[in-house]
Order: sequence, then C-alpha cells, then structure tokens
Amino acid sequence: MKGKLYVISGPSGCGKSTVVHAVMAKYPNLRFSVSATTRPIRPGELDGEDYFFVTRERFDEMLRDGELLEHAEYVGNCYGTPERPLQEALDSGLDMLLDIEPQGAMQVRQKRPDAVLVFLAPPSMEALRARLFGRGDTSEELIAKRLEQARWELQQARNYDYIIINDAVENAAREFLAVITAEKCKTADRIRLLKEEH
Amino acid sequence: MKGKLYVISGPSGCGKSTVVHAVMAKYPNLRFSVSATTRPIRPGELDGEDYFFVTRERFDEMLRDGELLEHAEYVGNCYGTPERPLQEALDSGLDMLLDIEPQGAMQVRQKRPDAVLVFLAPPSMEALRARLFGRGDTSEELIAKRLEQARWELQQARNYDYIIINDAVENAAREFLAVITAEKCKTADRIRLLKEEH
Repeated sequence: MKGKLYVISGPSGCGKSTVVHAVMAKYPNLRFSVSATTRPIRPGELDGEDYFFVTRERFDEMLRDGELLEHAEYVGNCYGTPERPLQEALDSGLDMLLDIEPQGAMQVRQKRPDAVLVFLAPPSMEALRARLFGRGDTSEELIAKRLEQARWELQQARNYDYIIINDAVENAAREFLAVITAEKCKTADRIRLLKEEH
Repeated sequence: MKGKLYVISGPSGCGKSTVVHAVMAKYPNLRFSVSATTRPIRPGELDGEDYFFVTRERFDEMLRDGELLEHAEYVGNCYGTPERPLQEALDSGLDMLLDIEPQGAMQVRQKRPDAVLVFLAPPSMEALRARLFGRGDTSEELIAKRLEQARWELQQARNYDYIIINDAVENAAREFLAVITAEKCKTADRIRLLKEEH
C-alpha cells in the first residue's frame, strides 16, 4: 500500500509545528518531506535533513528539468519540493507531509489531485496577534505584516480539503490524526484491500 | 450548526450493531433514525422507538406523499425512513445514523449528496461464514443465502464514501469515530465557523 501525501499550511504563529510534532509523535508513519532551498545553511542545520541546500543555479536547473513538485520564493530565497525523493518515500508506504504556503499548496493540488490539503487556522485574529506578541522577538511593524499575511492566507483556506482550528494543541492534533485515519478508510483506497480479501 | 447524516450498511453477520453501539457510547451526539415498517410489532418492541409500526395503507400513503427519504421491501414487509423527524433531528444539531441496505443507501445518496455513506465489511468471506455459523440459530441453507446476499452487498461497497473493515470491534469503532471527526473538519462546514470568528 502506497503512502498518502499531506499538505499543511497555516499562518505564522498558528502553532503549526507544535501540532505537527504532536501528530508525528502518535503517528510515526508520517514524515516531513525535505525541501530544497537557496538560502544559506544556518548553524545546527543539516544538509539533506533540514533542507537540501543548493545554489541558485542548481535550483533553477531543478525547476527547468521539472524536478520540483512545487516551488515559491520568499525574501529573495527559493524553496521547492523535489519530487523524486518524495515519490520514493510514498512508494515505500510512508505518508508524507509538506509544510508549505498556500501558493505551493495550490501547485500540489493541480499536479496531485489525490493529495490531502489541511489548513491550520488560529481560533481568532486576536489569538494570533497575542501569540505573535507573546513570542517577544518581533517588532510591531513585523507583527502587522504577519497579520496582514495571515488574513490573506485565511482567505485561501477555502481551497483546502480540511480546516483544523488550533484552539488547543491536543484538539488540533486529535483532529489531524482523525483526518489521517478517515483518509485511509476512503473507498478508493480500501476497495483494493476488500478485493484482495474477499 | 446542523447535524450530519450518516448511512451504515454491511452484510448480516458483519458485526454492524456491535460496532455502531461502540461508536454511540463514545459519541452520544449520533442517534439512530427510527424507520417506519409494516411488519408486526414483536414483544418488547416500542412503537416510535424501535420502529414506527404502520399499516400497509399508511405506508403506501407516506410513500405517495413523498414522506420517505428511502424505502425497501424485504420478505413481504416494507421499511422506510420518514424524512420529517430525521430533518428535525438534524436541524437540532444531532448527527443521525441510518442502518439500511445498499438499495436504500443509494436512494439517500441521490436525494442527499451531503450524506456520508459508510460500508462495514467483514475481514473476509471465511470470517463472515464463521460468524454466521457461530450464531448457531441458522440453517445451512439460510447461511448460504446470507453469504450470497453478502457477496452482492460487498459489490455495492464501491458506491460508499468509506469502507471500514471489521477485523476487531474497537478498530472499526475507532475508524468510524475518526470518520465523524474528519467530516466535521471538512472545509465546506468549517469555512462558516472560520468566517464567524475572524
């Protein structure tokens, strides 16, 4: 049985990485896809684990040769999902998770209609503002920018299959796990199993 | 928030009622829809609780007046789902469950595309045969008939949204509960919630 491809998006400060790690702790068959990026490696990061760190020339080559499932550019750096290692992981039965922005998610939607798109939303804009302030390491100006970006991203939520509202990490993780379990029960996948056994 | 309509089907002996009761014990917001039937009331049954017991004339009238969401006839008796009490329960926020045969399920699918159809399958035909024998109250001939009927029903599974294989009651109940949770996260329903809160 091949693995399923999941995409998660959600505005900065919505608690995405906490929820995702809670899900992975309970469901280790779900793995992060490693993105390629042109941004410089940071201390403590590992090439091939945190990212595939590549030059701009190599990135453009991957793009030109159709090696990337999706790609986007942020603040001068390019990010993309190499399709081959992703496909190999799926073929081996692993469920794979892409943590990407809505633009990338829509590229995945077009190329892989069987991908499951999950949008993680904050319980309210007020809660998001409070979380961004709570981090303590950002300026008012940056927070205002992030909130504006968040409003745009929330408008994209309608294009996802599922919306999970992160009112509490354990609830959001429970719902994500339910989505994974329910997706495995979908007829298109299960019918094969049924044919094998009856 | 309105409730959701669920349909469960599965061959005789697949353990459907055990699974459904395990689900309802954990999720009391899910209620059985009460069917109308022309079959005689049995000792211990309650009118309006086990079934709405009606005459053939009354049943035909309900059918003619479009009061039934779906209906079917088995061994000379008519069974059907009165739509008005079902709709009232859904409007009040309850999730409703119809335990019906594939013919009725397909009528529901056509009239209510938002209904969620779940097929409960035995792990194998051998397991089903063993369970039917294990009941001890049925003849070889009746078991053969039920297995033939089960084969036909299993062919209808492809028309359902989800297929749950009842290898163990706790697994099947867990999967059904995951389907209910995931359905609540679907974008069509959640987007309204998101709009109200942002």
